[in-house]
Amino acid sequence: MAKDKKLVEEITSMDEDFTQWYTDVVKKAELMSYSSIRGCMIFRPLGYALWENIQKELDRRFKETGVENVYLPMFIPESLLNKEKDHVEGFAPEVAWVTEGGGAKLQERMCVRPTSETLFCDFYKDIIESHRDLPKNYNQWCSVVRWEKTTRPFLRSMEFLWQEGHTAHATAEEAEERTIQMLNLYADFCEQILAIPMIKGKKTDKEKFAGAEATYTIEALMHDGKALQSGTSHNFGDGFAKAFGIQYTSKENKLEYVHQTSWGVTTRLIGAIIMVHGDNSGLVLPPRIAPTQVVIVPIRQNQEGVLDKAHEIEEKLGAFSVKVDDSDKSPGWKFAEHEMKGVPIRIEIGPKDIENNQCVAVRRDTREKTVISLDDVDAEIAKLLETMQADMLERARTHRDEHTTTAVTYDEFKDAIENKPGFVKAMWCGDEECEKKIKEDTTATSRCMPFNQEKLSDVCVCCGKPAKAMVYWGKAY
Amino acid sequence: MAKDKKLVEEITSMDEDFTQWYTDVVKKAELMSYSSIRGCMIFRPLGYALWENIQKELDRRFKETGVENVYLPMFIPESLLNKEKDHVEGFAPEVAWVTEGGGAKLQERMCVRPTSETLFCDFYKDIIESHRDLPKNYNQWCSVVRWEKTTRPFLRSMEFLWQEGHTAHATAEEAEERTIQMLNLYADFCEQILAIPMIKGKKTDKEKFAGAEATYTIEALMHDGKALQSGTSHNFGDGFAKAFGIQYTSKENKLEYVHQTSWGVTTRLIGAIIMVHGDNSGLVLPPRIAPTQVVIVPIRQNQEGVLDKAHEIEEKLGAFSVKVDDSDKSPGWKFAEHEMKGVPIRIEIGPKDIENNQCVAVRRDTREKTVISLDDVDAEIAKLLETMQADMLERARTHRDEHTTTAVTYDEFKDAIENKPGFVKAMWCGDEECEKKIKEDTTATSRCMPFNQEKLSDVCVCCGKPAKAMVYWGKAY
Repeated sequence: MAKDKKLVEEITSMDEDFTQWYTDVVKKAELMSYSSIRGCMIFRPLGYALWENIQKELDRRFKETGVENVYLPMFIPESLLNKEKDHVEGFAPEVAWVTEGGGAKLQERMCVRPTSETLFCDFYKDIIESHRDLPKNYNQWCSVVRWEKTTRPFLRSMEFLWQEGHTAHATAEEAEERTIQMLNLYADFCEQILAIPMIKGKKTDKEKFAGAEATYTIEALMHDGKALQSGTSHNFGDGFAKAFGIQYTSKENKLEYVHQTSWGVTTRLIGAIIMVHGDNSGLVLPPRIAPTQVVIVPIRQNQEGVLDKAHEIEEKLGAFSVKVDDSDKSPGWKFAEHEMKGVPIRIEIGPKDIENNQCVAVRRDTREKTVISLDDVDAEIAKLLETMQADMLERARTHRDEHTTTAVTYDEFKDAIENKPGFVKAMWCGDEECEKKIKEDTTATSRCMPFNQEKLSDVCVCCGKPAKAMVYWGKAY
Repeated sequence: MAKDKKLVEEITSMDEDFTQWYTDVVKKAELMSYSSIRGCMIFRPLGYALWENIQKELDRRFKETGVENVYLPMFIPESLLNKEKDHVEGFAPEVAWVTEGGGAKLQERMCVRPTSETLFCDFYKDIIESHRDLPKNYNQWCSVVRWEKTTRPFLRSMEFLWQEGHTAHATAEEAEERTIQMLNLYADFCEQILAIPMIKGKKTDKEKFAGAEATYTIEALMHDGKALQSGTSHNFGDGFAKAFGIQYTSKENKLEYVHQTSWGVTTRLIGAIIMVHGDNSGLVLPPRIAPTQVVIVPIRQNQEGVLDKAHEIEEKLGAFSVKVDDSDKSPGWKFAEHEMKGVPIRIEIGPKDIENNQCVAVRRDTREKTVISLDDVDAEIAKLLETMQADMLERARTHRDEHTTTAVTYDEFKDAIENKPGFVKAMWCGDEECEKKIKEDTTATSRCMPFNQEKLSDVCVCCGKPAKAMVYWGKAY
């Protein structure tokens, strides 16, 4: 019983120490383990199953828009990485270098991909000749390596899992359209499946991707009021195409450069799920992403007929992902364990319930108990799951809105960042100096210039010069 | 039209030069491209879609047996790799070493995983304490790196994609059972889905995995008579457990070592599909693994009603993976292109067919044409696909059996290896010296000691000493 005991021990309260609460949940819900390699994580079955569900749903949505999957090598020769100036400056300091292979020193060192723009460009240069070869809408699911100084499970690690889409188009308009299309796809996925509402917007030049013309982002607010950049979509214009010589013959028989995009989300989305929905009993998983949606806990399972009935219910719930926990632990242990792991609905079924042709369903998020007739169990559970999914999104949206402050003066701004955890909306002149000053004064960064612009005042919150855009600011992971 | 032209140019005949035929198919069916990294391949959409289908089906079968997916880091510190003596001797010469990261030289170099036994052991050591924690049936889908001197698309490359299952059990019996279970799972998958019949057997000690107690294998015969090791399953006994200190407390409260297995298949299965089923027009894909099962080619597609009818058929075939090719190429080009890419069934539909309420279905493997009433198109296509799948397996089995020779004397053996491409069955004394001599004399290797043993004679085909087992021998990829 030693291991069970650890599970149901109290975890650190999230209001007391959010960081420790996060670490506790990640560990006790068995999402991941530390490995003996500095900054590298092990995805345990529950953590990886979440990623598999994210993959499955996103991949389906990608393919509906004409995306095809490919797989490119994990190594990038140094000369290839060096081809686009801004890009190499952004990434070279944080790569891992392979310098020996097959028992010999390499003539040219290779880095483990931190991202694959250069590889895709090298590939596109070979396979794109004519306008008939466009667009190319390729994506790959893989891991990448970035030498991070400080790491946190799912949020920042040396190796992480992600998808990276890379597209090539005939026109600038088409590239911009694809950039925005994928940002919208990400935001819809996060809202509908992960129950996390997103702010969509454009990054400032200071915060954009190394080598991009424009970077768009989806930003979420965690329970502690910190922002999490949850996905990005970049429009490269023809910058990479010119550096790599990716040209096509147009319908008018002219040689033109392609226009490119890239876009990605990572396993940090799992961190977002934890930090948006979790509570002091552990993980709370939105039904649509939960690897196990319903767990059935038999009460007095040794009494005749109880386990049979539990499995009968399991069968009736065939449309969902259901488990009967018939281990020899006590019901109390099981409750705590499945709560820690965030299973959306627990069904309790014991001899008395069977007598009354009923079972008890308990929602993970609200602990609300519902007595359900066994005749309607499939329809009722379907309803409960849908309601829970909708409620979780609504709760997250309310939390975010209640933790979003508007600041017109710089004093208001500083006060908000210091005392009101959450987003701060404020006007900005467009000058990088103000971003730097704000970061120095408050540690907050510009999260994005949202697509939904509001005019809060005429002047920059920091310098008082004419404002160019409203910006979401915040402390971020 | 330049690109189309390339596609339908003749490829090298397989009887003339099988190696060149293979390279031509891989390239012209757009399965993969060479990258600018020595020995690394790019999986193009068709090649990767084949791997996705293999993954999907295998993953489903794994999970039915209780396997859970995880993800472990891609790096292995040198000290960890060194922990199991045979294992490090087998792999150290062919790894890639990371020696610099984040702008500094590493204190300890790390290799990119060539396989992950050591990482799983390090992980299991931490999470296994009691008999209640067993078995652990973990698997990961990832890529691995081995510094190969000569490379061939899908068959042998520096980086390749695979799955590696790693399990830990309380008893030796349970470990052996899992080892055989996974081998059977692989063989069933290859026969039922890839239409490739497999010889199941045990590797000789000389050919077994570095660190394993026993290695089991599935061996397939390619069209040119060479063997391809298509999947392996290893029983490690408690060797790794002792090297890494993986112990559990038994029900009797005693400290015991776990017993481990590992098993894997790789993207070389795609090579097997090409070399077992392909012909002089290109790829021939078994219906159950084909990313596109049916392509509809409209004839006179500009004539009113033709495209509509094509899409109507597409809708009726909703249970399958279907594409309408409405590009502006000629039907002839389209036929050749989809033949090259191995699409199992082509449907032709033109104005005359529409008049007669029919379409023409052409099987890729036999070129057999069937006229099908549009009223029954779904049922008829379903039947055709199933027949084709069964016929392809049967044809592969016949080819293999016709290319399997029995040798009793060493002269017969040498003659068979030299003049009769295929497997040679012969008795063996169990001595590694005979394996070495046979390899020197003929370049053939022992493929496996099949589960289905036959007694061909009492003595070893090579040395004449008493025979211990019948062995399948052959030249191999």
